Amino acid sequence: MDSNKGHKKVIKGINPAFAKGKKQRTKQLLDIEMLAKDIIAGNHTALSRGITLVESTVLKHQELAQSLIEKCLAHANSSIRIGITGVPGVGKSTFIESFGSYLTNLGKKVAVLAVDPSSSLSHGSILGDKTRMAELSQDKNAFIRPSASGDSLGGVARKTREAIILCEAAGFDTIIIETVGVGQSETIVHSMVDFFLLLKLAGAGDELQGIKRGIIEMADAIVINKADGKNERSARLAKTAFAKALHLYPPKDSHWTPTVSTCSAIEHKGISDIWQGILSYKTLTQENGYFTTKRHEQNTYWLLQTIENSLKENFYRDTQVKEQLPRLLEQLSKNEISPFIAARKLLSLKKK
Amino acid sequence: MDSNKGHKKVIKGINPAFAKGKKQRTKQLLDIEMLAKDIIAGNHTALSRGITLVESTVLKHQELAQSLIEKCLAHANSSIRIGITGVPGVGKSTFIESFGSYLTNLGKKVAVLAVDPSSSLSHGSILGDKTRMAELSQDKNAFIRPSASGDSLGGVARKTREAIILCEAAGFDTIIIETVGVGQSETIVHSMVDFFLLLKLAGAGDELQGIKRGIIEMADAIVINKADGKNERSARLAKTAFAKALHLYPPKDSHWTPTVSTCSAIEHKGISDIWQGILSYKTLTQENGYFTTKRHEQNTYWLLQTIENSLKENFYRDTQVKEQLPRLLEQLSKNEISPFIAARKLLSLKKK
Repeated sequence: MDSNKGHKKVIKGINPAFAKGKKQRTKQLLDIEMLAKDIIAGNHTALSRGITLVESTVLKHQELAQSLIEKCLAHANSSIRIGITGVPGVGKSTFIESFGSYLTNLGKKVAVLAVDPSSSLSHGSILGDKTRMAELSQDKNAFIRPSASGDSLGGVARKTREAIILCEAAGFDTIIIETVGVGQSETIVHSMVDFFLLLKLAGAGDELQGIKRGIIEMADAIVINKADGKNERSARLAKTAFAKALHLYPPKDSHWTPTVSTCSAIEHKGISDIWQGILSYKTLTQENGYFTTKRHEQNTYWLLQTIENSLKENFYRDTQVKEQLPRLLEQLSKNEISPFIAARKLLSLKKK
Repeated sequence: MDSNKGHKKVIKGINPAFAKGKKQRTKQLLDIEMLAKDIIAGNHTALSRGITLVESTVLKHQELAQSLIEKCLAHANSSIRIGITGVPGVGKSTFIESFGSYLTNLGKKVAVLAVDPSSSLSHGSILGDKTRMAELSQDKNAFIRPSASGDSLGGVARKTREAIILCEAAGFDTIIIETVGVGQSETIVHSMVDFFLLLKLAGAGDELQGIKRGIIEMADAIVINKADGKNERSARLAKTAFAKALHLYPPKDSHWTPTVSTCSAIEHKGISDIWQGILSYKTLTQENGYFTTKRHEQNTYWLLQTIENSLKENFYRDTQVKEQLPRLLEQLSKNEISPFIAARKLLSLKKK
């Protein structure tokens, strides 16, 4: 594609040190225009470059990324966004490989993104790695992108949230966001998807032990994976236990009753039932209006969240605040100061 | 008491318009010194006045209140802070009347405070009203204070949190914080108490229906009230249902297993068992260190929360932000703008 050449330069050519002239600026915006066009035309390479721009920490790139997102927003197709979580070892990669291939066979276009809480620390990326999904990564109707890295989980989340928009503009109708059961990452993924799926293994009877508080309440479906061979019976027992437990939870705002099912990702069993469940969810919530309401609420949540994070980052970046905070925390732990007085002291530093 | 005269003036005499001179300032601080002394001596009138000062919205009063709290902090006795929640009609007042009187009979000093989410709207106060607890309000070892009012639930919470310190300094060893099952108020009360008690009524079998998400996970004890007369049997059935449900929840960080019991506040039955449970909780968590850890964590939480609220209030108070926010929210709902771009636009207004 001819236009490929143009947006290649957007990434490689934008060096903030040189991007000063008005001419240069106009040139960059023209490149962004072209990149947007290619993304909307469904060019995977362009999509990758767009996401790289979104993930860049260079201020200039961030501005261009915003302009790119603005151009893509109107073209973001209607999609279903599915969050998938589960502890390491539950078989997330195999599940997504099997589930994703099933969907592309149905003619769907599947994008797999990831929110990896460890990526904000190690700057590595465990989740969404192409090498873990050999088959799906070769599929021309699939797009796999490893987790963004960042200074904070909030930063990683923002980048993923923006990557969703670009993927949708590129025509992907099924967006899978993968995460792992650590810290806040599930809550964050839950706040950017329509449907939330919890992958589990059959355990030793006491099925709900070891599940983090709140996750059960977020799940729209619990899928017990590796229900094959000698695991089949225990998976069935686990299914009954979960179904019983779910019954005790209060009804959801979506009016959806969470489902429990078993599957064997490796043997491609139980996958179509899961997809049927998601379709039923979509029909129900589109009819009762919850689907749209939830997306609006999520947008508002992200708006407020971004402002909040920015205000906090700006505050705690202050040299004086950085210097005083540990001292005040120590006084607080000795009960020498009230939390409110400590807060006021810190806030007054910033005002000066 | 002679010193009564002094702190009477602290409240009545402090008019910010006149409080300009150095002499006046010194005078006020001397009055605060006296007020603190009287609170620490256990004077209920002084305590009431101290809380009024804490609740005042006048900036000058707030500064004096901080100085009062600083003086009281070191004298804040070791106490147990108990949160009590339940929907309207569950019998909270009768329960607190019965429970509180039981405790004062044991020689305890009981303070009853309240966090009423409606008080931030109507500036009225439903909870913690003396007239609802006729017997307890006459008890010289009890102190009842209705919910503070305020512009926000966060403000009401801060005032209650500071009132706890004053009550403890006044020698109250059992602090009861009452709230009602609406919105965020339970989470807020949970974050300021050691033990969280959920009052319930026996229902029609499906006991967990209608309980707000997350509350069960916060509860250290579930007490089914009005277990008297023809309700006794259904209360026993409800107890079994709750106990079964609780068993399915993951274990708590405190290592405490939440209890379920029945009581009749009006017939004073089951009250001593509840108190024994709270004592067992205190022993367990003091031995395993959780009691202190939780209080430290709560202090840090309140410090960070206060800063966050103040940053947000300051931001949204801005005239330009106020003007632009509704417009951007509308664009957002039409999907014309991404939440991140909208956030940046608002943040850039404040920078100017």
